[in-house]
Amino acid sequence: MKIILVGASGTIGSKVASALESEHELVRVGTKSGDVQADITDLESLKELFQQVGAFDALICAAGIGHFGPLQSMSSDDFHSGLHSKLLGQVNLVLIGQHTISPGGSFTLTSGILSDEPVPGGANLSAVNGALNSFVKAAALDLGKSARINAVSPGLVEDSKELLPLFPDATLVSMDHVVEAYRSSLFGKESGKVIRVWE
Amino acid sequence: MKIILVGASGTIGSKVASALESEHELVRVGTKSGDVQADITDLESLKELFQQVGAFDALICAAGIGHFGPLQSMSSDDFHSGLHSKLLGQVNLVLIGQHTISPGGSFTLTSGILSDEPVPGGANLSAVNGALNSFVKAAALDLGKSARINAVSPGLVEDSKELLPLFPDATLVSMDHVVEAYRSSLFGKESGKVIRVWE
Repeated sequence: MKIILVGASGTIGSKVASALESEHELVRVGTKSGDVQADITDLESLKELFQQVGAFDALICAAGIGHFGPLQSMSSDDFHSGLHSKLLGQVNLVLIGQHTISPGGSFTLTSGILSDEPVPGGANLSAVNGALNSFVKAAALDLGKSARINAVSPGLVEDSKELLPLFPDATLVSMDHVVEAYRSSLFGKESGKVIRVWE
Repeated sequence: MKIILVGASGTIGSKVASALESEHELVRVGTKSGDVQADITDLESLKELFQQVGAFDALICAAGIGHFGPLQSMSSDDFHSGLHSKLLGQVNLVLIGQHTISPGGSFTLTSGILSDEPVPGGANLSAVNGALNSFVKAAALDLGKSARINAVSPGLVEDSKELLPLFPDATLVSMDHVVEAYRSSLFGKESGKVIRVWE
């Protein structure tokens, strides 16, 4: 299977890469590293990515950031710019990639626990994750049999435990458990699902 | 209670206005009608709105549109521009309004059923509604005791039955039921809730 892995050098992406690289043709994508360099906040960069890669069987995105900070000091620009990477970047991967994905291929995006279990300062990321979860549900209807699409929604992963002060009630999620969720989206039959890795 | 009602002449807003006008001081807001004209897609217009209105006890927004159309022909611009009104417009009302709302006041935004029950062509609106639902959950934590915030998530309302062809499985929701949801956000004690009017 030819799999585009966006964010291949990240905390989650690097574990997903390790789990898949021996049996699949991975196209590792990063802003500065990987087989192909692309910036998910830059539409032209994404168009070039898909042109360069050609047909593919699956795309996993484990990249994207949002804005973090209290509502009281959040500006409209803060909120808006917080949508550009994790939300619009991932949606753009689907909007462009749908035209070159092989029939029956799959998209796996990454949302996160904050859509359901918010934390102080997380309003932008909660919105981003909530948007992604609902987007995959609806996009699956339009993609129909041409391609599947799911979102993995991880809790705070054990390799990011430095973020624990921001997630006061969090239980750390094992990296193995998270990798298993991406595998289930990739190799399963479901579409339009949010695979929660924290319940 | 001094209540800012954005979208006061709309399908839902006009019913909410009728239900509240006899007992409360309503500030009706519309792009071209109402007591104050404002455009929720225009940040400067919203700043002027709050400057003009001064302190207020509650804000209800029943305004905002998204993009509707199939994923296959959706461009990145379509998706992005679909965020400007219903998502960013409503979030901006909160980001700006939080600084002049009276202590213990409330914000009530409007999301909708498509976050949970998608329809073909609705991927942008699903994302918008999902973002709004998760936004209010998280924003409530940051607002704390200073103000409450909830979202009303209506199904397809009986006064919009011309949209039935787009919602093949929809059961029409009565306008009274929807108005009751806004009243419950306005006069109840809850914050961070999504009040679903279709279950």
